[in-house]
Amino acid sequence: MQHLLRSQQFSVEGLTKLYDMADRMRVTFGRKPDRQGMRTFLAGTLMHAIFYEASTRTRFSFESGAQHLGMSVVSTDNAAQFSSAVKGETLEDSIRVHAGYAPDVIVLRHPEDGAAERAAAVVDASGHACHVINAGDGRGQHPTQALLDAYTIDRHYGRIEGLTVLMGGDLANGRTVRSLAYLLGKYSEMRIIFVSPPQLAVGADILEYLDRHGVRHDQVSDMESVLPEADVVYWTRLQVERIADRGFAHEMRELQRASFTIRARHLRLLKERTIILHPFPRKGEIATEVDADPRAYYFHQAENGMYVRMALLFSLIKELPL
Amino acid sequence: MQHLLRSQQFSVEGLTKLYDMADRMRVTFGRKPDRQGMRTFLAGTLMHAIFYEASTRTRFSFESGAQHLGMSVVSTDNAAQFSSAVKGETLEDSIRVHAGYAPDVIVLRHPEDGAAERAAAVVDASGHACHVINAGDGRGQHPTQALLDAYTIDRHYGRIEGLTVLMGGDLANGRTVRSLAYLLGKYSEMRIIFVSPPQLAVGADILEYLDRHGVRHDQVSDMESVLPEADVVYWTRLQVERIADRGFAHEMRELQRASFTIRARHLRLLKERTIILHPFPRKGEIATEVDADPRAYYFHQAENGMYVRMALLFSLIKELPL
Amino acid sequence: MQHLLRSQQFSVEGLTKLYDMADRMRVTFGRKPDRQGMRTFLAGTLMHAIFYEASTRTRFSFESGAQHLGMSVVSTDNAAQFSSAVKGETLEDSIRVHAGYAPDVIVLRHPEDGAAERAAAVVDASGHACHVINAGDGRGQHPTQALLDAYTIDRHYGRIEGLTVLMGGDLANGRTVRSLAYLLGKYSEMRIIFVSPPQLAVGADILEYLDRHGVRHDQVSDMESVLPEADVVYWTRLQVERIADRGFAHEMRELQRASFTIRARHLRLLKERTIILHPFPRKGEIATEVDADPRAYYFHQAENGMYVRMALLFSLIKELPL
Repeated sequence: MQHLLRSQQFSVEGLTKLYDMADRMRVTFGRKPDRQGMRTFLAGTLMHAIFYEASTRTRFSFESGAQHLGMSVVSTDNAAQFSSAVKGETLEDSIRVHAGYAPDVIVLRHPEDGAAERAAAVVDASGHACHVINAGDGRGQHPTQALLDAYTIDRHYGRIEGLTVLMGGDLANGRTVRSLAYLLGKYSEMRIIFVSPPQLAVGADILEYLDRHGVRHDQVSDMESVLPEADVVYWTRLQVERIADRGFAHEMRELQRASFTIRARHLRLLKERTIILHPFPRKGEIATEVDADPRAYYFHQAENGMYVRMALLFSLIKELPL
Repeated sequence: MQHLLRSQQFSVEGLTKLYDMADRMRVTFGRKPDRQGMRTFLAGTLMHAIFYEASTRTRFSFESGAQHLGMSVVSTDNAAQFSSAVKGETLEDSIRVHAGYAPDVIVLRHPEDGAAERAAAVVDASGHACHVINAGDGRGQHPTQALLDAYTIDRHYGRIEGLTVLMGGDLANGRTVRSLAYLLGKYSEMRIIFVSPPQLAVGADILEYLDRHGVRHDQVSDMESVLPEADVVYWTRLQVERIADRGFAHEMRELQRASFTIRARHLRLLKERTIILHPFPRKGEIATEVDADPRAYYFHQAENGMYVRMALLFSLIKELPL
Repeated sequence: MQHLLRSQQFSVEGLTKLYDMADRMRVTFGRKPDRQGMRTFLAGTLMHAIFYEASTRTRFSFESGAQHLGMSVVSTDNAAQFSSAVKGETLEDSIRVHAGYAPDVIVLRHPEDGAAERAAAVVDASGHACHVINAGDGRGQHPTQALLDAYTIDRHYGRIEGLTVLMGGDLANGRTVRSLAYLLGKYSEMRIIFVSPPQLAVGADILEYLDRHGVRHDQVSDMESVLPEADVVYWTRLQVERIADRGFAHEMRELQRASFTIRARHLRLLKERTIILHPFPRKGEIATEVDADPRAYYFHQAENGMYVRMALLFSLIKELPL
């Protein structure tokens, strides 16, 4: 694997290898180890973190993981506002120049669908041996988020096959939903229940993909009726910044508050082993009163993100088969 | 000491240890040493510098010190504007996620009073062994600034006890004044003279603290009358960005220009050994014509900042008693 | 050489040494080497990258080169908007404080002409052994850009002497044109043809300098008539951000589109060995249809930038004669 652009790229076998590597990363670099002197796994390699949209969480996850591995990092927070993007440069020109500075990896976040694929094409044409990782492009994909979501589920249940995943909130605008649905399609006997206001329903491309891959799926708009069925509750916030119509955004926010917010009283509807995930940031759609419940798994999930990204960086740069 | 949140946390004994360590840092990493290969004191450790308010000086001081010590750093300049703060995330969620990325230290700058304490509580609850350093929270505290101020005074006089410190300028809005006053309260036989327009007088909480700790204090509004008494002149700028009323801010600026600005002609009022300090940035409240005088000690003070912060990072991470 | 402030500082002999060092950097750190463990050339040294104007390209070029060499880096993207510059601090105060944090190099980008010289003066007065590199100051200079331009020409032709360089586009506002013209004046038997709308003609100071150094020069406004004469075509974009009058900026943009844009059909006018350079970013003034031509040399030129900057960092810090 040269670039990570879409969550569909992985085979189940490749995912298993990646998850095992993530475990190893956690054991090696996780809580309170004697880390001194161990940061040599990727010493001498360079990451460019190019974020056209700010995402402190994703950027820190990649950069912290890179630093734990001994990589060097050069990064920008807001390439769109402060860089030559203002001066009218194309993404293609920018990436071509970046590739010339001999990074081993370019981690790209961009507001346009398909940006990561365009970047990878430019890198390949340039002749530089550099890996492109899609850290979210528009409403397109956010594959490393999907990888960490799936890793979290897998490590909790010991498998992914046969689980029922409830995906709720803003299914129309969140790229994490797309990436995760595509990834879950790799596994057999899955069921996905989509729960959202009809105005924020999941895209037809996803449903088609799931049909093609034999994933059973339903769309409902009543959250409480389906909570008891879920093995995994995957909840998302309203992506107001991707909704142009402000009146509509306001209306949806009210609707989310009223009918698509997980509160303490919903916990009794869940099975005992069910886990609640959220790609973060949250804006009230899971009440903080839920946090103390052991099934509130979203902080653990966020933590997993770094180890999965470390596993990915290591596997790509060391050219391990995935 | 697990976290540095308030300047009051230190005992005089602990301060002495910290100052000695800062001396050691200066000797090891200061001007023109053969530094090559020495950056191993904290190799393999990671700092997260999370600045919700930009402060290039404080951030560079921490990050340069960290790099001299061999630490890795991941940082953000403006977490408030460009991060998930825009998307409505709470500080608590953000810090909890940061802690999961296994940094050894989080250096936090935040516009709200008490933010550092909230962050430390979240880190402790998360079970991650991570130190939180308050790099300024709202009008609350800026304890590392106070530590470097006190270190500078101590190294100049060989002691802090018994000195008369004149603190002037905007005493109502500057957190450095609060932190330093609290710290000076640790030492015996201190006298603090506060000089400011009555509208920018020092807060009642500080005066109460000083009373409780037996620090003699006065409030005056005529700068020239008290300059001759000072061993240390600690001058501050008007914190216009913390004053909501623009008319009032303008009026205060005029007043500072007229009556609370240190100029060359004031130098003859000072004792020969007196030092002039300023937490920076300055905006004219000490005229540049003062800079050439050996008593203009503020650049030396700023330089000390890095060594004190290095001493603090080293002591916290190596769990030295303070 | 203590600081790099202006392209004129170099002798031809010094340039030759720098270019040889850049070659060495490319061989050592360029495409697909086994770089692991080699990043020790400047281990233990620190760069401050202080950008008052964003320039992702220039900053990444410096920082990537520094990281390849094993340097530590602390950087800011937008010192003007987010730092104490907002609070009214002078450049002199800022740089003096930076110098105190013991960086080995300060790379400065600033919107005002002469900022780099002011910074160097402050550093020298401070007594700190720190090198200042001008990464572009206002309409003043951008000497490392000129160095990489000249290096690119030299490595293509094996010499610079005797070449005809066509410089076109916005000659009034682009600092790269100034820096390169000054540098080319070092070489004998040069000819420079300036091609631009009369309203964007090259400055009198440059023409005077060229006269003094015996460089033949012409000014024309018809691009096509002079393309066949050029050994090097150096094309630049309209610096709209430096033009206050928006109507005039619009008019110039239209003019550039109509008459000062290099398109595929112009390629047949060029000699076979001619190379087309551009300091980037471009905004349409070289059509992308030109990119596939082997004479389109601008991406190669951008790549050279990092190696030249690495050579400069290494030579300054190691105090090699230049």
